[in-house]
Amino acid sequence: MDKFIMDDIILNALKEDIGSGDITSSSTVPPETKAEGKFWAKESGIICGVDLLCRVFTLIDKRVVITPLVKDRQLVQYGETIALISGPARSILKGERVSLNFIQRLSGIASRTAVAVEAIKGTRATIADTRKTTPGLRVLDRYAVKCGGGSNHRFNLAGGILIKDNHIVAAGGIGNAVANAREHAPHTLKIEVEVKSFSQIDEALVAGADIIMLDNMDIETIARAVKLINGQAIVEASGNMGNKNLKEVADTGVDIISIGALTHTVRSMDISLDFKS
Amino acid sequence: MDKFIMDDIILNALKEDIGSGDITSSSTVPPETKAEGKFWAKESGIICGVDLLCRVFTLIDKRVVITPLVKDRQLVQYGETIALISGPARSILKGERVSLNFIQRLSGIASRTAVAVEAIKGTRATIADTRKTTPGLRVLDRYAVKCGGGSNHRFNLAGGILIKDNHIVAAGGIGNAVANAREHAPHTLKIEVEVKSFSQIDEALVAGADIIMLDNMDIETIARAVKLINGQAIVEASGNMGNKNLKEVADTGVDIISIGALTHTVRSMDISLDFKS
Amino acid sequence: MDKFIMDDIILNALKEDIGSGDITSSSTVPPETKAEGKFWAKESGIICGVDLLCRVFTLIDKRVVITPLVKDRQLVQYGETIALISGPARSILKGERVSLNFIQRLSGIASRTAVAVEAIKGTRATIADTRKTTPGLRVLDRYAVKCGGGSNHRFNLAGGILIKDNHIVAAGGIGNAVANAREHAPHTLKIEVEVKSFSQIDEALVAGADIIMLDNMDIETIARAVKLINGQAIVEASGNMGNKNLKEVADTGVDIISIGALTHTVRSMDISLDFKS
Amino acid sequence: MDKFIMDDIILNALKEDIGSGDITSSSTVPPETKAEGKFWAKESGIICGVDLLCRVFTLIDKRVVITPLVKDRQLVQYGETIALISGPARSILKGERVSLNFIQRLSGIASRTAVAVEAIKGTRATIADTRKTTPGLRVLDRYAVKCGGGSNHRFNLAGGILIKDNHIVAAGGIGNAVANAREHAPHTLKIEVEVKSFSQIDEALVAGADIIMLDNMDIETIARAVKLINGQAIVEASGNMGNKNLKEVADTGVDIISIGALTHTVRSMDISLDFKS
Amino acid sequence: MDKFIMDDIILNALKEDIGSGDITSSSTVPPETKAEGKFWAKESGIICGVDLLCRVFTLIDKRVVITPLVKDRQLVQYGETIALISGPARSILKGERVSLNFIQRLSGIASRTAVAVEAIKGTRATIADTRKTTPGLRVLDRYAVKCGGGSNHRFNLAGGILIKDNHIVAAGGIGNAVANAREHAPHTLKIEVEVKSFSQIDEALVAGADIIMLDNMDIETIARAVKLINGQAIVEASGNMGNKNLKEVADTGVDIISIGALTHTVRSMDISLDFKS
Amino acid sequence: MDKFIMDDIILNALKEDIGSGDITSSSTVPPETKAEGKFWAKESGIICGVDLLCRVFTLIDKRVVITPLVKDRQLVQYGETIALISGPARSILKGERVSLNFIQRLSGIASRTAVAVEAIKGTRATIADTRKTTPGLRVLDRYAVKCGGGSNHRFNLAGGILIKDNHIVAAGGIGNAVANAREHAPHTLKIEVEVKSFSQIDEALVAGADIIMLDNMDIETIARAVKLINGQAIVEASGNMGNKNLKEVADTGVDIISIGALTHTVRSMDISLDFKS
Repeated sequence: MDKFIMDDIILNALKEDIGSGDITSSSTVPPETKAEGKFWAKESGIICGVDLLCRVFTLIDKRVVITPLVKDRQLVQYGETIALISGPARSILKGERVSLNFIQRLSGIASRTAVAVEAIKGTRATIADTRKTTPGLRVLDRYAVKCGGGSNHRFNLAGGILIKDNHIVAAGGIGNAVANAREHAPHTLKIEVEVKSFSQIDEALVAGADIIMLDNMDIETIARAVKLINGQAIVEASGNMGNKNLKEVADTGVDIISIGALTHTVRSMDISLDFKS
Repeated sequence: MDKFIMDDIILNALKEDIGSGDITSSSTVPPETKAEGKFWAKESGIICGVDLLCRVFTLIDKRVVITPLVKDRQLVQYGETIALISGPARSILKGERVSLNFIQRLSGIASRTAVAVEAIKGTRATIADTRKTTPGLRVLDRYAVKCGGGSNHRFNLAGGILIKDNHIVAAGGIGNAVANAREHAPHTLKIEVEVKSFSQIDEALVAGADIIMLDNMDIETIARAVKLINGQAIVEASGNMGNKNLKEVADTGVDIISIGALTHTVRSMDISLDFKS
Repeated sequence: MDKFIMDDIILNALKEDIGSGDITSSSTVPPETKAEGKFWAKESGIICGVDLLCRVFTLIDKRVVITPLVKDRQLVQYGETIALISGPARSILKGERVSLNFIQRLSGIASRTAVAVEAIKGTRATIADTRKTTPGLRVLDRYAVKCGGGSNHRFNLAGGILIKDNHIVAAGGIGNAVANAREHAPHTLKIEVEVKSFSQIDEALVAGADIIMLDNMDIETIARAVKLINGQAIVEASGNMGNKNLKEVADTGVDIISIGALTHTVRSMDISLDFKS
Repeated sequence: MDKFIMDDIILNALKEDIGSGDITSSSTVPPETKAEGKFWAKESGIICGVDLLCRVFTLIDKRVVITPLVKDRQLVQYGETIALISGPARSILKGERVSLNFIQRLSGIASRTAVAVEAIKGTRATIADTRKTTPGLRVLDRYAVKCGGGSNHRFNLAGGILIKDNHIVAAGGIGNAVANAREHAPHTLKIEVEVKSFSQIDEALVAGADIIMLDNMDIETIARAVKLINGQAIVEASGNMGNKNLKEVADTGVDIISIGALTHTVRSMDISLDFKS
Repeated sequence: MDKFIMDDIILNALKEDIGSGDITSSSTVPPETKAEGKFWAKESGIICGVDLLCRVFTLIDKRVVITPLVKDRQLVQYGETIALISGPARSILKGERVSLNFIQRLSGIASRTAVAVEAIKGTRATIADTRKTTPGLRVLDRYAVKCGGGSNHRFNLAGGILIKDNHIVAAGGIGNAVANAREHAPHTLKIEVEVKSFSQIDEALVAGADIIMLDNMDIETIARAVKLINGQAIVEASGNMGNKNLKEVADTGVDIISIGALTHTVRSMDISLDFKS
Repeated sequence: MDKFIMDDIILNALKEDIGSGDITSSSTVPPETKAEGKFWAKESGIICGVDLLCRVFTLIDKRVVITPLVKDRQLVQYGETIALISGPARSILKGERVSLNFIQRLSGIASRTAVAVEAIKGTRATIADTRKTTPGLRVLDRYAVKCGGGSNHRFNLAGGILIKDNHIVAAGGIGNAVANAREHAPHTLKIEVEVKSFSQIDEALVAGADIIMLDNMDIETIARAVKLINGQAIVEASGNMGNKNLKEVADTGVDIISIGALTHTVRSMDISLDFKS
């Protein structure tokens, strides 16, 4: 993650959470009070966001010393310490909630991704994310998917060509759409087409699509589609994958399984900051 | 929601999702192509974010006409149309994902809140949110909780005094902390203290806390705490409430049940945009 | 004051004052010229803004060394040195006006506040500020009031409930307004009502207001109001307090005297930077 | 004033004052309630900021109708109506304080300037402002000085060459400084030199300064300086002019009297918004 | 071009050019003066930036009426009118330079691109741009290349995989680099490798590169490379193409000729605004 | 150049070029790989932008060490090393294009300016720039002109009074325009008038213009104009100067030759970064 991108996101979050000032800390804790504490995992999971956690406090007060004991992508168990922190109590209290909000959310995404990746181990498929992310945090959400072992789909509308149902309607058919894309889009991008039927697969293959996305098909249909495509295009299965048996999907031979739920349905991992008393 | 705050968030999301331009639409769909479609619910739930949905398209292209058929706070059923949309196809396609990301997320929060509110109907308690929101989107998350029938806790560190465990450690006890807060903080804010034991409740009462937050106690302990406090302070139950039987908690007589999971563990509601073909 | 908030304000001020560059210094002073100087008080007063003063120069050029000799909240006399400064002459000249504009203004506010605080010494009352601040600088104005010994009212419209004359008109009476506020606003905020008459005081008490603001009353009326309220609510006197005898107001027994003039009618304290020649 | 500059300042002020939302209005006043009111002068003075006043409400809610009855630069008397306003009560309440903070402050500056301008009527001198403005609001402060009949000095460090005491020290003398400025600065700017003595006036004249600023001299000295300069340069009197008899200064024959106090020591004009009940 | 992206760029340019205000117009032209004029071409070329031209004035003052007579991508001749303009003279004068700076620059890029496109007409090659654009204006520069008939390369470092000389050094060879890219980068992006020799071409082909960029080769070498690659990858010729005979390059059979000079060496097209006197 | 202005421009450029991340480097180069390289001149020219070059990398990653071997304003020859660089390979690769885009462009402007300055050596004239700069980069473009030995005209519309043809039309003549400017504009600015004929020169002289700009005249006409003006005003020659014989123009005795092409028609200087392999 680029520091200047990370900093913009963190400062935005700090301004949101601190507003005109942390009244509780500044009215109850003397400025010279020091504190020591630790961030620890209240459940097991894949940690993601350690750099963000540290950076939050550096941006608040350079005197805060924070020492991470684990790295992103690492599996931690209940009770494990993630980082030690010490410094002016007011400054630590000021960053507590924001830092936790980041690391809990990202670790939640990474952990969920890791479960999906584990489920399809040994198959040719990889788990990918989608654009169904939380507005303003996509760069973080994507990073968390990577940390969980997944791969990233196109980042945004400028990062890839994906011709979906509504494009096909508006462009007047798959053939048209692919031909137009080939003529007008950068030659550095592959052309992906979302299909809902075998006849659309045929159209996409004839048009020369590089990637075919099978939208919301059942296992059996996916299996037949993979055979039909037969290596002429990369095959991506998508649509409600968050609720499917991923192993069965992967066993059909698809190359990519993209799962919106990785980022649109997030459960924060439980992590706490405790002060040494 | 204030328009200028909403606009900042939407523009940020659009810039994130569009980047240097929507390559697929601009290369496959002619600029003059018109489209018509509808946003519809693929599951039942409380709708939240209709204004945002509409505003996304106005900010992209004033020629897009979007007509909402439901209002925020309204329960919709599977298959129900949320809004009709028509206009230049490229502009609609450009806003599709961002508008859905907003309304799906907010409706998810509102729907979950509504379930919690329903669970405690008939008791004196109200359901409240926390600061465990997604960085940068708190104003939206809070609004969604309201739409689901919940109430809002302090918005941020400037919006209330909440003396938590780490403050108590740093301030050298509850008595000290409350006295300092009374002297130094604005007189417009109530003083809330988080407690973990009956002796802390005693301290908080002696110190004159306006609100006592019972942290992570079991039902029986909460019930005893409510009796001990006996109306001398507002009582708030908090801590892992997302996994508790809310009716039982409410029946103890607490005034407020605050639930971090309302906003930190979000399941997007399933909503789609379909073009008329 | 949070560093990232302070930095935004300072950078904004520097961009305003420097524009495309300091033509005078860059055309008349060689880049390698060093200077030494001191900031000193040309009149007595309470100093406020030393951190800002220093930060201005750090943001311009890290080679500037600035050593404060006094701290915020400290009373200085005519002729007293506030800070020593040395480093590249161009960089010091570039920050001179902006740094003085900040510290002169804030010290002016703090000094005026201190006079008001001194006037009511020995009474139960405290001096508070209002939202009548200079747009964009509220966080600084409030800090200066604190440094002068005053206390802060709600920071903004999100930081407290204050039902004023126009709200009462729009809500259809005090009773209604207070009941609505209690139902819909965060439970962490007290409810304050502005009153202009004894009958409104009665209404506010019946409605259960936490704080009653006596708007623009004369001393005798305030005294009667305090007796009428008789400890059932915090009593705040407000309205044209900048021109009143504060000791007389305080002696009525009010808890808070809020004074718009502390921040809306500011006289800068006279402070200069002189180079050693 | 350019709209996009004005909008940035207003939106900044609204975000500061509204924060996460106007809790009082949104909890006490129903969204459909309409209100009518008027802004009126509680003392006489020169009005400045009518466009800002109106724009505040347009930016909040286009449904608010505001009709100004006076124009900037106009003298109003106690009791005079400045503008009529009607529309959604919540939206008017939300903008009340910010709009007043702007117009009260600017009208205060304009009124004070007008007094100074009046004082020197009939002389050749004009009243000018300085860079002693409130950080972030210079463009407004300057506009207010203009509305009061004053003239503007250079806007910022990029807008003119003013060689002051500290520059003279750093540059090694007036002759050097002026020669350097002539060689390196844009040919579109006049060169002004601040002097404290007759010998410095001589140096400045020899060096060919276009403007000579007499710093902090008494009336008699100013008069002698004007004679010495004898039309070879524009003469500006400056330094503590806020406390001087301006007529006496002007009668010495100076061209410009620049007064920091116009903007650094501001008394807001008393203006109110009253709702029709 | 998306309106919200265009607006950010225009407002930035206006703030840069107007600063604290247009002193000349506001001091010499009365506010009520109207003007009429036309933008016209002082040389022939491909017009690009008509939307920007119009938007500049809308952002300054909605009362300005501007009627474009030509569209982007259109060839105009010396003397041809591009747009008519009328409205408040001050507002037109304020936007004159900025609007011209945009349309002159973009039309210059489009015109140069059109020359290159014309030169290779009838070959299989297309002309593409590079990342050698002016910082902050890439989205405009790219749009101008499109208007001139060229195609766009990857927009930025996130929009494509291009393994260049320095990556090959750092990754330890082409094979390694391509394998890593295939494993870690989004599957939606093609993999391009820059080569300087035939042996590197072999390596790239073996590694399965989708696109091979021939860096800075002479015509004969390019011709041999095209034969060697023989349709196994898209072939892009690059490096100093601004100074080469493009027809000869295209005749070798390359697919893409990318030319940094399209955007790094820009000659503004001569366009003027004249007022009707 | 002020650091905070420079930083805004660089961060904007980095965000534009990096987008959501540098996919090529992060997927092909391990994070721990170090690299060493040098920036070197592929043609001779005046270097400008060394500070920017260095700052780009500091903003990306403080571990990158960059050591400049030349200074701005220095003439370098083909093959000369401009700076050495070493550090994490990913971070260097990430900043390569942006840093080159800056230094190539600015060195191009400086070099072209130097040619113009050289051409008029020995005359009384100086070479100046105009407002025909690239939107958003004026502060850099101007700096480059200075580094090439040129001088700067007014920075923007707030930095000088230049009454051009369209102002004269709108103001109703030169006499009127100059009188208005003298009354209403800051006394620190000279008044410049653009003229197209001898009769306009007369009008400008009568009105007391400080500077007369001869617009687009041929050499002979300029020479006669200089004689006519005869030292009563500074004389500036402008209009299509990029295509004129500057020595001939200068020999007429004009004071200033302002050339739009210095910044509107830029040829980047060829500079490269090579890694040590």
